[in-house]
Amino acid sequence: MTTYGPEHLPYGVFSTADSPGHYRIGVRIGDRVLDAGAAARAHGVQWASDFNQPTLNDFLGRGPAIWASARGWLQENLGGASRTSQWEALLHPLDEVTLHLPITVADYVDFYASEHHASNVGAILRPHTEALTPNWKYLPIGYHGRSSTIVVSGSDIVRPRGQRKGPGDAVPVFGPSVKLDIEAELAFIVGGETAPGHPVDIEAAGDYLFGIALFNDWSARDIQDWEYVPLGPFLGKSFASTMAAWITPMEALREARIPLPAQDPEPLAYLRGSAEVSFGLDITMSVELNGEVISIPPYGAMYWSAAQMLAHLCVNGAALSNGDVFASGTISGADRHTCGSLLEVTWNGTQPLTLADGSTRSFLQDQDVVTICATAPGAGDTVITLAEVTGRIVSGAAT
Amino acid sequence: MTTYGPEHLPYGVFSTADSPGHYRIGVRIGDRVLDAGAAARAHGVQWASDFNQPTLNDFLGRGPAIWASARGWLQENLGGASRTSQWEALLHPLDEVTLHLPITVADYVDFYASEHHASNVGAILRPHTEALTPNWKYLPIGYHGRSSTIVVSGSDIVRPRGQRKGPGDAVPVFGPSVKLDIEAELAFIVGGETAPGHPVDIEAAGDYLFGIALFNDWSARDIQDWEYVPLGPFLGKSFASTMAAWITPMEALREARIPLPAQDPEPLAYLRGSAEVSFGLDITMSVELNGEVISIPPYGAMYWSAAQMLAHLCVNGAALSNGDVFASGTISGADRHTCGSLLEVTWNGTQPLTLADGSTRSFLQDQDVVTICATAPGAGDTVITLAEVTGRIVSGAAT
Repeated sequence: MTTYGPEHLPYGVFSTADSPGHYRIGVRIGDRVLDAGAAARAHGVQWASDFNQPTLNDFLGRGPAIWASARGWLQENLGGASRTSQWEALLHPLDEVTLHLPITVADYVDFYASEHHASNVGAILRPHTEALTPNWKYLPIGYHGRSSTIVVSGSDIVRPRGQRKGPGDAVPVFGPSVKLDIEAELAFIVGGETAPGHPVDIEAAGDYLFGIALFNDWSARDIQDWEYVPLGPFLGKSFASTMAAWITPMEALREARIPLPAQDPEPLAYLRGSAEVSFGLDITMSVELNGEVISIPPYGAMYWSAAQMLAHLCVNGAALSNGDVFASGTISGADRHTCGSLLEVTWNGTQPLTLADGSTRSFLQDQDVVTICATAPGAGDTVITLAEVTGRIVSGAAT
Repeated sequence: MTTYGPEHLPYGVFSTADSPGHYRIGVRIGDRVLDAGAAARAHGVQWASDFNQPTLNDFLGRGPAIWASARGWLQENLGGASRTSQWEALLHPLDEVTLHLPITVADYVDFYASEHHASNVGAILRPHTEALTPNWKYLPIGYHGRSSTIVVSGSDIVRPRGQRKGPGDAVPVFGPSVKLDIEAELAFIVGGETAPGHPVDIEAAGDYLFGIALFNDWSARDIQDWEYVPLGPFLGKSFASTMAAWITPMEALREARIPLPAQDPEPLAYLRGSAEVSFGLDITMSVELNGEVISIPPYGAMYWSAAQMLAHLCVNGAALSNGDVFASGTISGADRHTCGSLLEVTWNGTQPLTLADGSTRSFLQDQDVVTICATAPGAGDTVITLAEVTGRIVSGAAT
C-alpha cells in the first residue's frame, strides 16, 4: 500500500527549527515535505507568488485551472523515478518540521448532514418529538461557528467551562464541562471569492471546492443543552475545533466519488445537481480514543453532498471568501459503533464504553487523546490516507 | 449643539478620489476627516505604524493605554483654537472622501440582550410556550454570524432568496424573501488578543472594549422561520449586516453610562461585574424608513451589559482577536413604537405601518431605505451623535 504517493499530494504549512517564524507552504510526499514555495521560485511558475505565502489562502483564490496546473507540475516532478537532485534538495523530513494551520480561516459553517446523526441527536435530546425536524430533508441545516478557534491537529484542547443545568438542578451551575465530546467530521476548504448577491449555481460548486481535511468539532454537551434554544449552539462549540494539518485536494478523490443515498423528497431545484458535481465520498473513518478504535463512521452514508452544502450556504447571496471552511457535521452510520460522537456511541452516557484498560467512558476525561483517521480509494490500487486529526484534553487553569 | 467635536472623535477608514486604492485611517472632526496616519507620521508618535494601515485592527491590538494616549493627542491637536496650519492641512472635507469598513471583522457574534425583544419574538414565533426561554435570564444568549458579509453603511442590500414554508404551504417554496426586516442594534468592537483557554474576567472586560458602532442586522424572517430549529439562524441572517462607518470610542461614552436594569435572578459570579465595568448606555436611537421615523429604541433598556456579553462569549476559553465584533441583538423598549424590528412594530405583519405617503409596510420593499441614527449625552452639555447606519434594498438578479 502506497501512502502519500504522487496520487495524493496534500497541501500544508510548515516551519523548520532553524527558522521557526518562517511559515511555508508544503506538499507532502511520503514521509517528506516539499518546500513548495522554493520549488515554485526556482521554476518561475505562474503560482510562485501564491506558494510563497504563510498560508494557502492566495492559492485558494487562483481557482481550479491553476489548482490543476500546479498539481500536474507537482506530480510530474515528485513522481518517483524522474525526481531530480534539485527537487530532492527541497524535501524536508516530516519529523523535522512543525506543522501549522494551513489556511487563515475566513467564515466557518458547520452542517448537520448525516441523517443517522440528526436522528440520534433528536431522539436523545428531544425524545418527545419527531427525531428529524420538518426542515431536515429540504435543506442542509447548518450554522456559523467561531473561525478563530479552529486549531491545527496536535493542539491541546483546554476543557471548557460554562453553565449547565441538569434535570435535577434548580438553577444552573458553573464549572468545567462534564460532558466533553467529539464530533468526527469532514471539512471542505473553499477557494474563490464571490460578490454579495451572486449565489453559486450547484453545477459550478466544484469550482470552489479546493479540498478536504479531517475535522473534530469538540462539543460540550452539557453547555450546549442549556444554551442552544432558541439561537443554536454557541459556547458548547466555540472553544475549539481541530483541523488536520494536510488538505487533500478534491482532485485526489476522483476515485472515491460514489452516488449519494436516495433523497426523498426530491430537493428543490437549487439543490439538484448532476452526479458530476453532487456526489458522496467513499471515505472510511476510524475514531481512536487513547489508541483504541471506538467507532468507524462511514462518510458514504451522508445525506447531503458537499456541492449541496455549498450551494445552500450562499443561495441567499452570502459572499464566499478564500479560506471559507464548511464542515459536514458529525458523521454517523446506522449502527452504534459507526457513530461519530460519544453522545451517540454511549447514548448520552447511559451505555458507557469499556476500554481495553478496564476503564469506562461516557464522555472525555482529562488527558484523553482522540485521533481520527480515514482512507479513501485512490487511482488504480492506491489508497488515499487522509491526514489524521488528533488532540488531547487538558484541564483549564483553576479559578 | 456641537456634533463631532473633540469630545467624540470617532475612527473610520477612508480613501480619496485621487488615490481610491489607498485606504487610510481617519478621525472625524466636524464635517472633516483627519488623515490620522499622516498626522501620526509627522509627529512620530508611538502608534504611527498602527495608524498607517488600511484598517484599525493593529491599533485595536494596542490596548487601552495607547487608545487613551492617542485620543488625548488627537483632542489636544484637533481641539479648536490651538489647531495649527499643519493639522488643518491634514483635514479632508467629509463629502470628498469615500468611507470603508473600518476594520477587518474577525469573529462576529450576535446577542439577544433585550428582554422586550426576546419576549416579543417568543410571543410571535412560539405563541404556545413561555415567551422567554428558561435560560434567558441566566446567560446572554448569542450565536455566531457571518463575518464576511458585514458591510459598511451606505452599501446596497440585495434581497436574499431562500426557502420558506408558511402555514398554508404543503412543501417549502423558493424565492426572494417576502419578510425582509431590520434589526436595530449596537455593535461593540473588540481589541486585544487572548490565548485559548484563558477567559477574560468581567472586571477586565473594559480593557477589550474599544468602541461602538450602530448596526443593522438585516433579517429574512420567512427564511429564518423555516430553517432555525434546531441549530439557530443561518441564511435568514447571513446575507448581510450593515455597520456604521465610524467607530465611537468607549471613552467618548463616559457620560452616557447608566445603571443596568435590575437583574433577577442574580447572575452567576462570572457575569457579576462592578458598576464601573458592567453598565448600561443612555443611547436613544431612531429608525427611519424612507426618511420617516418609525421607531425610537432605547438602548438603556437592554438587560445585559457589554461587559457581561464579552465575559460570557469567552468564558468557555474561546480566544479573542483584534477586530472581533459582537452586537447587542435587536434593541426594543416596552412599547411597540420603541421596537427595533418590523417583526415587532407590525406584529409579524398583522398590523402594518401606514407611511406618510399613504403606502403601508409589513416588511421592507425594494428601494426602501432604512437609516438608524442615535445620540448619547457627552461631556458638559455636548451630545455625542453616533454615525448613522443606512442601507437600501435592491432586488437580486432574476434567475
